[in-house]
Amino acid sequence: MRRALELAERGPARGINPRVGCVIVAPDGAVIAEGWHRGAGTAHAEVDALSRLEPGAARGATAIVTLEPCNHIGRTGPCAIALIDAGIARVVYAVADPGDHSAGGAERLREAGIVVEGGMLADEVEAFLGDWLFAARHRRPHVTVKWASSLDGRIAAADGSSQWITGHAARSDVHRRRTAADAIAVGTGTVLADDPSLTARDDTGALLPEQPVPVVFGSRAIPPHAALLRHPHEPVLLTGADLVADLAELQRRGIRSLFIEGGPTLASAFVAAGLADELLVYLAPVLLGGPMLALGELGVASIDAAHRYQLADVERLGGDVLLVAHPRPTEGN
Amino acid sequence: MRRALELAERGPARGINPRVGCVIVAPDGAVIAEGWHRGAGTAHAEVDALSRLEPGAARGATAIVTLEPCNHIGRTGPCAIALIDAGIARVVYAVADPGDHSAGGAERLREAGIVVEGGMLADEVEAFLGDWLFAARHRRPHVTVKWASSLDGRIAAADGSSQWITGHAARSDVHRRRTAADAIAVGTGTVLADDPSLTARDDTGALLPEQPVPVVFGSRAIPPHAALLRHPHEPVLLTGADLVADLAELQRRGIRSLFIEGGPTLASAFVAAGLADELLVYLAPVLLGGPMLALGELGVASIDAAHRYQLADVERLGGDVLLVAHPRPTEGN
Ligand SMILES: NC(=O)c1ccc[n+]([C@@H]2O[C@H](COP(=O)([O-])OP(=O)(O)OC[C@H]3O[C@@H](n4cnc5c(N)ncnc54)[C@H](OP(=O)(O)O)[C@@H]3O)[C@@H](O)[C@H]2O)c1
Ligand SMILES: NC(=O)c1ccc[n+]([C@@H]2O[C@H](COP(=O)([O-])OP(=O)(O)OC[C@H]3O[C@@H](n4cnc5c(N)ncnc54)[C@H](OP(=O)(O)O)[C@@H]3O)[C@@H](O)[C@H]2O)c1
Repeated sequence: MRRALELAERGPARGINPRVGCVIVAPDGAVIAEGWHRGAGTAHAEVDALSRLEPGAARGATAIVTLEPCNHIGRTGPCAIALIDAGIARVVYAVADPGDHSAGGAERLREAGIVVEGGMLADEVEAFLGDWLFAARHRRPHVTVKWASSLDGRIAAADGSSQWITGHAARSDVHRRRTAADAIAVGTGTVLADDPSLTARDDTGALLPEQPVPVVFGSRAIPPHAALLRHPHEPVLLTGADLVADLAELQRRGIRSLFIEGGPTLASAFVAAGLADELLVYLAPVLLGGPMLALGELGVASIDAAHRYQLADVERLGGDVLLVAHPRPTEGN
Repeated sequence: MRRALELAERGPARGINPRVGCVIVAPDGAVIAEGWHRGAGTAHAEVDALSRLEPGAARGATAIVTLEPCNHIGRTGPCAIALIDAGIARVVYAVADPGDHSAGGAERLREAGIVVEGGMLADEVEAFLGDWLFAARHRRPHVTVKWASSLDGRIAAADGSSQWITGHAARSDVHRRRTAADAIAVGTGTVLADDPSLTARDDTGALLPEQPVPVVFGSRAIPPHAALLRHPHEPVLLTGADLVADLAELQRRGIRSLFIEGGPTLASAFVAAGLADELLVYLAPVLLGGPMLALGELGVASIDAAHRYQLADVERLGGDVLLVAHPRPTEGN
């Protein structure tokens, strides 16, 4: 299984499909084929591995695969059938397929008389699949809501000036995290106020190799000269009227993780809807007072309705501090 | 000097006067007398030590004392004169006397031909004198402003409910810090809304041995049945119209450290006036939104006017986090 995971790592880290690896082992213990998935439209890992064998060579062999073989007819046909047809005797997988259409592969294999074992190295493979698995299970990308504020929760002084509340180390931490996300989002308010480029940059201002797809929520038009229109990826424009539907649309486009950069209206909408899977709160040791709040109205009438999280990490970044929090497990998710 | 500091520690930790210790050493190196200050109205450490010697026995000796011998005629007469009269040849002290009336002792001693050296073990003695030294130098108590809020800077939900935003560990940390302060203050708004007892209590709710003096800022009357009227110390009532004058009044009453517990109006007034020497911000991983802000208006029109601090400590307390900050040194203080 560890070898299958190594093979899986060769696949592309972004996109609709998971990274999967497969090893075929003969009854005498010899590895006779290896395969991995190279991205949407190409062969799944199991089919890739089988394709390296002469017909009949897999008869009686064991297939070790990081994800439960799929059962759906996509661009490639179900892997379960391919394994049955090849005469595989035993299938070992790490993580169950969370898809609606694709799950059921293990059952189909068992019905065909194949010995099936799930759960091997499951924790490691779960961690490796990360946001893909989250997106497949929740039918939406993993959502991070980030803001940078003063200790009293303000993102700017009364006149809107905010450069810079947090320092260099906090800002480069944000860029590092941007580059790890599939997409980065703001509301139209931020586009109109700040004209952000929505790129991930290094300390010299140069673009980092991996760029998140820019997403704008809102109904107002993007000005024709907006900086985000010069982003290496074409922006995705969504109305934000139905956040769940918008997220499902992003998932359909292969976006597994979404980094919400603000402003306060959009961030508050995601929090109020219970759609913030991770909070990144960068706090500068500054006090501002006044009306420019990091979050506005969240519909919390009484303390029992508070949005409760748990701190996952507290990190000092230069003179600032980053708090990372996730929803309390008791509240679902 | 280390012995003198040990002697100083025997004095009372609270009150108007500092804790001072003194050792008299004969020319042959033998310790011939020790003394310390036992609180306002009693002999100063130097006089206490000299009083243990026969007349003439201190002639040619060295006096080692934690604080520069005083030069003013209070209830006890200047120590500088007492040392001169006793025939002391050399005086070694740690920290200079910060008082307006009492300073100048070293000069007076030098004028009398005595060898005087200051600064021995100064850092240690400074740390030991702590808030007394701060109060003497700034002519006001050391002010700590504390609040407990959600990550988005709210102290309660929209209906005012707030029990409990922070958890047990954070609350007992507050009580531990209360008991270390000479006085604890709230505004009349908090008295009328919450009827706080303003006591420091242990985990069972029992009073801790050391209780801070309760202080209320505001012009509105305290209700006759207010809990704080049953406090072991009589409350000090101040209008808050001139915070600097009020703080000077507290210092005159022997209060070296003041712990501001809120509410938001009083806390904002202290921050806006630049009178917060320490911030204690207890943050719970909760989001509330809405109008109940930890701090209100601070008069910061533009980011250049931000009240800037530096983080001294970041501490996880149960599920919460405590941020401790002090004013940036460049901004004075
Ligand atoms: N310090 C920071 O971390 C930070 C980060 C970003 C921005 N900012 C500041 O934030 C300010 C902009 O604030 P803002 O609140 O106007 O910006 P915003 O949150 O970016 O934009 C608000 C707009 O988002 C749209 N929207 C889409 N879906 C929504 C939904 N479900 N609920 C509500 N609105 C939705 C609406 O636009 P339509 O009316 O077009 O539908 C709404 O007016 C700027 O001053 C900027 O500098 C600060
Ligand atoms: N979570 C927490 O950490 C925490 C802690 C404490 C309180 N609270 C909450 O805070 C709420 C009370 O808020 P609040 O703001 O009304 O309370 P407050 O700050 O305790 O009281 C405000 C009052 O303080 C007086 N004051 C004295 N000096 C002042 C000055 N220099 N500037 C302005 N005011 C001065 C004024 O009273 P006069 O009009 O009488 O002159 C003013 O109305 C309650 O709901 C309470 O539960 C929360």
